[in-house]
Amino acid sequence: MSELKIPYKIYLEENEMPKYWYNLRADMKNKPAPLLNPATLKPMTAEELSGVFCDELVKQELDDSTALFEIPEEIRNFYRMYRPSPLVRAYCLEEKLKTPAKIYYKFEGNNTSGSHKLNSAIAQAYYAKKQGLKGVTTETGAGQWGTALSMACSYFGLDCKVFMVKVSYEQKPFRREVMRTYGAQVTPSPSTETEVGRKILEKHPGTTGSLGCAISEAVEVAVKSEGYRYVLGSVLNQVLLHQSVIGLESKTAMDKYGIKPDIIIGCAGGGSNLGGLISPFMGEKLKGNADYRFIAVEPASCPSFTRGKFAYDFCDTGMVCPLAKMYTLGSGFMPSANHAGGLRYHGMSSTLSQLYHDGLMEAVSVEQTSVFDAAEKFARVEGILPAPESAHAIKVAIDEAMKCKETGEEKTILFGLTGTGYFDMVAYEKFHDGKMQDYIPSDAEIAESLSGLPTVE
Amino acid sequence: MSELKIPYKIYLEENEMPKYWYNLRADMKNKPAPLLNPATLKPMTAEELSGVFCDELVKQELDDSTALFEIPEEIRNFYRMYRPSPLVRAYCLEEKLKTPAKIYYKFEGNNTSGSHKLNSAIAQAYYAKKQGLKGVTTETGAGQWGTALSMACSYFGLDCKVFMVKVSYEQKPFRREVMRTYGAQVTPSPSTETEVGRKILEKHPGTTGSLGCAISEAVEVAVKSEGYRYVLGSVLNQVLLHQSVIGLESKTAMDKYGIKPDIIIGCAGGGSNLGGLISPFMGEKLKGNADYRFIAVEPASCPSFTRGKFAYDFCDTGMVCPLAKMYTLGSGFMPSANHAGGLRYHGMSSTLSQLYHDGLMEAVSVEQTSVFDAAEKFARVEGILPAPESAHAIKVAIDEAMKCKETGEEKTILFGLTGTGYFDMVAYEKFHDGKMQDYIPSDAEIAESLSGLPTVE
Repeated sequence: MSELKIPYKIYLEENEMPKYWYNLRADMKNKPAPLLNPATLKPMTAEELSGVFCDELVKQELDDSTALFEIPEEIRNFYRMYRPSPLVRAYCLEEKLKTPAKIYYKFEGNNTSGSHKLNSAIAQAYYAKKQGLKGVTTETGAGQWGTALSMACSYFGLDCKVFMVKVSYEQKPFRREVMRTYGAQVTPSPSTETEVGRKILEKHPGTTGSLGCAISEAVEVAVKSEGYRYVLGSVLNQVLLHQSVIGLESKTAMDKYGIKPDIIIGCAGGGSNLGGLISPFMGEKLKGNADYRFIAVEPASCPSFTRGKFAYDFCDTGMVCPLAKMYTLGSGFMPSANHAGGLRYHGMSSTLSQLYHDGLMEAVSVEQTSVFDAAEKFARVEGILPAPESAHAIKVAIDEAMKCKETGEEKTILFGLTGTGYFDMVAYEKFHDGKMQDYIPSDAEIAESLSGLPTVE
Repeated sequence: MSELKIPYKIYLEENEMPKYWYNLRADMKNKPAPLLNPATLKPMTAEELSGVFCDELVKQELDDSTALFEIPEEIRNFYRMYRPSPLVRAYCLEEKLKTPAKIYYKFEGNNTSGSHKLNSAIAQAYYAKKQGLKGVTTETGAGQWGTALSMACSYFGLDCKVFMVKVSYEQKPFRREVMRTYGAQVTPSPSTETEVGRKILEKHPGTTGSLGCAISEAVEVAVKSEGYRYVLGSVLNQVLLHQSVIGLESKTAMDKYGIKPDIIIGCAGGGSNLGGLISPFMGEKLKGNADYRFIAVEPASCPSFTRGKFAYDFCDTGMVCPLAKMYTLGSGFMPSANHAGGLRYHGMSSTLSQLYHDGLMEAVSVEQTSVFDAAEKFARVEGILPAPESAHAIKVAIDEAMKCKETGEEKTILFGLTGTGYFDMVAYEKFHDGKMQDYIPSDAEIAESLSGLPTVE
C-alpha cells in the first residue's frame, strides 16, 4: 500500500481488536525465574499466592507455556469503551525534525485514568468479581494506577480500597478526587487502619509515607479481610499479559498498512507498558520470523536496567512480598526527591529482565530536563501533552530520528505514548521556571543500596 | 443496518471528515440581528471589525448567506491530529438506567485543550497566520479557551498573549502551565500592561479580576499592537461556523449507520458547542426535511435563555465591544461565587438566540448538585470524567432517557460531551464532601442586572 495512504491515526475496527492476550513467556527459551517465598526461598505455589491474588490471576502469573489467553467478553466490552487506542503517524513531528524517519506512536492516554494502566485494572477487577469477591486493595503513589483501578471496580460494582502515599494524598488531591468520583475509598498511608501502619506511625510519627509502606498496608488488609484480594499495576507477569493488548493492536494496525517497525521504544518503570508494547514483536523475533531493535528507556535517577544488578530481590520496601529475579537497584533504593515523573520503581519485570539479560533488548537512561524538553517539543507539534513517563520514550524516539537525519536512513520507529500529563503540571512548571534539576545517583549510592540484596542460592 | 452492528464508538475515516463548515445562518429565514457599533448604534462594518479581528474572520462573521465555507487544507491537517472525535453509543449508561432509549454522545474531550474549543482556535490562528500577523490576544477564565488557543498558535508559530483572570491565574495554576508549555505568554489580569488594567488597579488595588476586565485588556493590546488581533472562543457567528464540524461529523456518522436522533441536547454558555452540534440538524429542520427536538441546557445560576431578555446588550462587562442582540441577563450579571463549572456568560450567541426566539429550540436550566450527580453516575459506567459544563447535557439526557423508561418509547438521544473535567477536581471535591450548594438568582437580582441594558431602537 502506498505510503501516502497512511492516515494520521489508524483506528482498528471493533472486529479487528484482539480476542486473545499474548503470553510472551510461552515463546521464551530462557523463562523468567519464578517468584520465591520470602520465608522459605522456594518457588511460590499457586496455593500460597491465592491468599493474596485472585485464583485466575494466580494461574496467569504462573503459566509460562500457554501462548494465548482468551480475553473474556466482559473485558472486551469494557475495552470497547476506550479502545482501540489510536496508532498515530507523527507527521508533524517528522516535519519539525526534518527527518527521513517514519515515526509512529501508540497513544494510551485517551481514557480517564490517563494511561495504559486501565488495560490490566479492568482484567484484575473482572477476575475478582468472577471469583465472587467483595473488593480489592492496592497502593498508589501519585494515583495513576489507583485511578485506573477505581474505574474498573466501579464498572463491576466492587469495593476498591486504595492506600495512597500520604504526601501525594495531601499535595496531589486531584487524582484522589478522581478516585472518589469512581467510588473508591482512599486512605492516606501510613494509616492507623493496619498493624503495619500503626507500627510505622509509632516509630516515625511525622512520616509522609512511602510506596513500600502503602504496599504493606494494602497487602495486610487484603489478607486479613474476608472476600478481598490485593492487586498490583506493574511488574507482574499477569500485568504484562493484559498489557499485550497494546502491542497486539499496534501490530495489527501496522500489518494492515504493510508497515514494519525497525525500532520499538518504550519507557520502563516496572515494565507494564514496555512489556505490553513489545510482546507480539518480541514473539516474532524469538521465533526468528522478524528482527526488531527494542529500546527500554529509564530515568537516569532510577536506572535499574543500566546500572542495577540481575538478582533476586524483594518486590517491596517492606519485604512482605515474594522475591523476584530482576534487574534491581535494591529494594531500599529511593530516587532523589527532585525526580519529577514516575518510573521510580527499584526493580523491573522478571520477563523483561530475562530478555535484557539475554541480549534481546537494549536499554538507555536519560536525564529529566532532556525528557521535559522532548515533551514540550512534542506537545507543540503533535498537540498531546505527554506524561513525564511517556516523554522518556519520546526523548529517545527523537534521538533515533535525528540519527536517521544524519545517515539519511528512512527507518520506521514505533514508540509507546503511555499517557497524558494533566496531573503533572507542577513538574512542567518547574521545568518552565528553570528550577528542574537532573540527578544521577553515585556508584557508591547504588552499591550501598545493592548491599541489602537478600542471599539466594 | 441492524441495531446490533452499531459499535461502541463510531470513528469516521479521514476521507469522510467534513471538507466544509456549515453556516446555519444561510438557511435561517429570520437572520440573527447584526452587531452594533457601541458608539453609533449602527451595524458594525467590515472595516470597523477588521481593526479587532482578522479579515477572513470578519467576512465569516458578517456573511449570513453563504451556506458552505471550505475548510482550508492546513486546518484539516490539524483536525486530523485529534479528529474525527468519536460518536459513542452509551450502551453502559443505557443498561444502568434500564431505559429503552438509545443514547449517543459526541465526545470532544480527547485533545489536550480538553474540549471542543480547539476546533475554532485552530481556525482563528490559521487566518491570523495567513494574514501575516505576528500574534493574537485573548482572555481566559479557568483556561480552557486559552489552552486551545495556545496549542493552535504553537502549531502555526504565532505569538499568543493570554490575559487570565487573576484569581484563576493564582489558584488554578495547572492550565496556566499547559498554556506555557505551548509557548503562550500568560498575564494575570488586571495587569499594569494596559491602560484599562492600570485604571482598574488604581481604583480597586486588591481586585482579583474578572472576565470583563480581561477582555478589555486583550482587546486593548490587540488594537494598539502592530500585527496583532483579538480572538474569542464563543458567542460569535464565526465560532459557531467552525464548531459546525462537531455536528457535521455526528450527522455523517449517524447517517452511515441509519440512525436518526429524536432529541439533540447540548450545554449552553455562549453557545459554541450547542451551535456547532445542532447546525446541520437544524438546517434540515429549517428546510423541512426532518424534525428534531433541540434542548439547550444552562445552569440555574446563569439562566440567560430561560430567564433573560431578548435584547441588544454589551458583549463584555467593560462595554468596549460591539452590542449583540441576544438572550441576556445584562452585561453586569455575575453568577454566584459558588457556581462551580463554566457556562457563566451573561449572554448567548445571536444565532441561537434567534432560533430560540422563533420557537425552533427549547431550553431548560438545571442546578449544579444535580449536574455533578449526573456527572458521577455517567463517569462510573461510561468511564469518561466529564467537565461540569458537559455534565449539564448529561443531566438532561438522563432525564429524557428516564422519561422513555416511563413511557416505553425507544427514542434516540444525541448529546454533546464537550470535554473532560481533569482540571475541575476542586469542584468535584466540594461535591463529594457535601459542600456544594445550589443557587438560583432571585427575580429582583435579574431585574436589577437587566436594568442596565443599553437603549437601542
